[in-house]
Amino acid sequence: MDTLHLSRHISSQFNEEIEQIRNHVMAMGGLVEQQLHQALQAIANADSDKAQRVIDNDRQVNDWELKIDHECTRIIAKRQPAASDLRLVMTILKTIADLERIGDETRRIAKVALESFNTQQQDLLVNLDNLGRHVWQMLHDVLDAFARMDIEAALSVYKEDKRVDREYEAITRQLMTYMIEDPRSIPKVMNVLWSARSLERIGDRCKNLSEYIIYLVKGKVVRHSNESELERNARS
Amino acid sequence: MDTLHLSRHISSQFNEEIEQIRNHVMAMGGLVEQQLHQALQAIANADSDKAQRVIDNDRQVNDWELKIDHECTRIIAKRQPAASDLRLVMTILKTIADLERIGDETRRIAKVALESFNTQQQDLLVNLDNLGRHVWQMLHDVLDAFARMDIEAALSVYKEDKRVDREYEAITRQLMTYMIEDPRSIPKVMNVLWSARSLERIGDRCKNLSEYIIYLVKGKVVRHSNESELERNARS
Repeated sequence: MDTLHLSRHISSQFNEEIEQIRNHVMAMGGLVEQQLHQALQAIANADSDKAQRVIDNDRQVNDWELKIDHECTRIIAKRQPAASDLRLVMTILKTIADLERIGDETRRIAKVALESFNTQQQDLLVNLDNLGRHVWQMLHDVLDAFARMDIEAALSVYKEDKRVDREYEAITRQLMTYMIEDPRSIPKVMNVLWSARSLERIGDRCKNLSEYIIYLVKGKVVRHSNESELERNARS
Repeated sequence: MDTLHLSRHISSQFNEEIEQIRNHVMAMGGLVEQQLHQALQAIANADSDKAQRVIDNDRQVNDWELKIDHECTRIIAKRQPAASDLRLVMTILKTIADLERIGDETRRIAKVALESFNTQQQDLLVNLDNLGRHVWQMLHDVLDAFARMDIEAALSVYKEDKRVDREYEAITRQLMTYMIEDPRSIPKVMNVLWSARSLERIGDRCKNLSEYIIYLVKGKVVRHSNESELERNARS
C-alpha cells in the first residue's frame, strides 16, 4: 500500500475541506462586521428599521456558528488531523465562538438604539460614534489578518485594544458628568453607557481573535500573556 | 489482530484519560466557585486583603484553562476519539472557556470592590448581596449537575437564569433612583452597577454550562434555542 500517496491523498482532502471551513469563517466574519456596521449606521441616522434588521439577523450569525462548529467536529472525526492541522481546527472553533459573541454584543447595541429611538432619547448616542468606528475598524482589520494569516496585522490589532480601552474610559467619564449635571438624563445616559461597554467588549474579542492568529502562525499559546511577552513570541 | 480487544484497550485508555480531564474540569470549577464566594465575602466584610487575593488567584484559573485545553487537544490527536467521545471532549473545551470567563467577571467584581474600599465608597455594595448569592448558587448547582451529568438539575439552572435577569433589572432600577435622588452618588453607584452586570453575565454563563450538559447527555445542540424547545429536547 502506498502510504505516502494515501497520506497525501487524505491530506489534500483535508486541505479542501479545511479551506471550505475557512471560507465559512470568512463569511461569518463578514456578516458580523456588516451587522456592527449596520448597527452603527442605525445609530447615526436614528434608523429604527435598520436597528430592527440587525436584531433579526443575529439569528444568521448563530446559524453560522452552529454550522461551522458541526463542520469542525466532523472533520476531526473523519480526517483525524495531525498536530498542526488539529491546531487549526481547534483555533477556528475558538474564533467562531468569539465572532458569535461579537454578534451578541452588536444585537445588544441595536436593541438599546431601538429603545432610545422609540422613547425619543437618542441624542446622546452620538457619543458612541468615534468608539464605534474605532472598534469596527479593529474587527475589519483582524478579519483581514485572519484571511491573510498576517501576524504583524494581528499584532497591531492586539495593541489597538489599549487605545479602545482608553477611549471607552474617556466616554464613561464624559457621560458621568452629564448625569451629575442633569440627573433627569440618567436613564438615557445609562443606555449609552451600556452600549459603550458593549463596544469595549467587542474590542476585547477582536484582541482574542488576534491572539488566535498569532497562535496559529507561531504555534505558541499567547493567551493570558502580557503585551511584551506576546510581541516577543510573535516576532521570534 | 484482535481488533475488538484493541479497541476495548484504546477505549479504556481513553476513558482513563478523559476521567482525568473531567476531574481537572471539576477542580477548575471548584476554584472558580471559590473565587466567586471569596469575592462576595470580601464585599460583605469590606475585606481588602480578600479582594486582592481573588484578583491574584485569577491567574490560577487561567492556568487551568490552558492546561485542560492542552489535554483535550492531546487526547484528540492521540486517541482519535469517535463521535460521542469526541463530543465529550469538544464540550469540555466549551465548558472551560465559560469557566475562565466567569473567573474574569469575578476578578472584575473584586477589583471594583477593592477600589470602593480604598475610596470609602463601599456602602452601596450591599445591594449586590442577594444577586451575588443567587448567582453563586447557580454556579454551584451547574457544577454539581456537570459532575453527575444530571439533566434535570441542568434544566433547573437554565431556568434560574430568567429569575437572575429579573433580579438584576430590579437592582438596576433601584440604583438609578439613588443616582437621581443624589447625583453625588453617581460614581459609586456606577461601580455597583458594573458589578451587578458582571453577576448577571456569570448567570448567563452558568446557563451556557447547563446547555452543554444537556447537549452531552442528549446529543442535541440546544444552544440558541428557546426555553420550551430546550425543555422538549432535554426531556425527549
